[in-house]
Amino acid sequence: MDKKGAILILSGPSGCGKSTLLKKVYENIEDYYFSISTTTREPREGEQNGVDYFFVRKEDFEEDIKNGQFLEWAEVHGNYYGTSLKPIKEALSEGKLVIFDIDVQGHEIVRKKLEKVVTSVFITTPSLDELERRLTNRDTDTSAVIARRIENAKYEIKSFQKYDYFIENDDLEKASNELISIAKIARIKSKLFDKDELIKNWLGN
Amino acid sequence: MDKKGAILILSGPSGCGKSTLLKKVYENIEDYYFSISTTTREPREGEQNGVDYFFVRKEDFEEDIKNGQFLEWAEVHGNYYGTSLKPIKEALSEGKLVIFDIDVQGHEIVRKKLEKVVTSVFITTPSLDELERRLTNRDTDTSAVIARRIENAKYEIKSFQKYDYFIENDDLEKASNELISIAKIARIKSKLFDKDELIKNWLGN
Repeated sequence: MDKKGAILILSGPSGCGKSTLLKKVYENIEDYYFSISTTTREPREGEQNGVDYFFVRKEDFEEDIKNGQFLEWAEVHGNYYGTSLKPIKEALSEGKLVIFDIDVQGHEIVRKKLEKVVTSVFITTPSLDELERRLTNRDTDTSAVIARRIENAKYEIKSFQKYDYFIENDDLEKASNELISIAKIARIKSKLFDKDELIKNWLGN
Repeated sequence: MDKKGAILILSGPSGCGKSTLLKKVYENIEDYYFSISTTTREPREGEQNGVDYFFVRKEDFEEDIKNGQFLEWAEVHGNYYGTSLKPIKEALSEGKLVIFDIDVQGHEIVRKKLEKVVTSVFITTPSLDELERRLTNRDTDTSAVIARRIENAKYEIKSFQKYDYFIENDDLEKASNELISIAKIARIKSKLFDKDELIKNWLGN
């Protein structure tokens, strides 16, 4: 039986440990494609085109919107952010597990459009206090940015039940094992199999 | 965070390898409770009360039906078969993973009654021919029994998409790894968490 293409969506506040967990997943699964967002904002120091984002011009982004090239997109503080449909479709047709790191709105749109192939996970810290501690300790953001992330986290936690799974990242090994298990079985969701075709083949006629 | 109680339902034709797969699961997970059915039929040679089934008298079974003591029950060829509610409730309240090996009708009833806590898996052989080969080779059933199992399998395969996951058991290691992964994450389904309580605790107020 061929591997089925499927989508794994991760959401959760900055500081919840998503990137570290994802690294563990990549070391333990095969045939995945990490979805890279497209944006019109300027690259920050150290950011690479095609790695952190696809950086494009505003006119090109708007042209792609018109032509229905985005699976989902949004405008935030005057900049566009979106997920191009083409690489996702290609990866799915090759039987890959497509991994998204997107926010709760993005999850809702992708889920609505591609319900059958989606498995989703909401990841968070054990508490808001712990999130604040981690964001302060990593010392990469200004206090204004931290404050905005905290406000956003308070808002996003309310949607955790719209996801299939909930991971409280208080123990890296436990949390990464859970995420690896989820990634490993995302492609055996029964909805991914064409019912009539499977039954016909199984009966052998 | 305490472990949540959850239910894992396995269905699939006799001969698909469920018992072997379950053994692998038991070696790799903790805090599970295997649900034992209650029946009014006579024990067969080698069957033990409390291991293979709880064997009870017809009058007692009917009394329990009247008193709403069954999560699900059915009458097959004049005998009753059912799942008592009490041990399931206890195991769930202790945060255990309750494992059921039941047929598609049983799955439908348990799922309807306990939707939020259920994860379900349909397991089968790669083909009907392969199922017939395995049933014939294991040499434990009469040809009449094999014929009935085959007819039943043809009927049950049609319901595979009502399950969360579909496992084609053509490679024991691969199939058991998939089932172990499913068992490991059954207790982190987001629906298992009380939304208001979790948000309140997370926000810390």
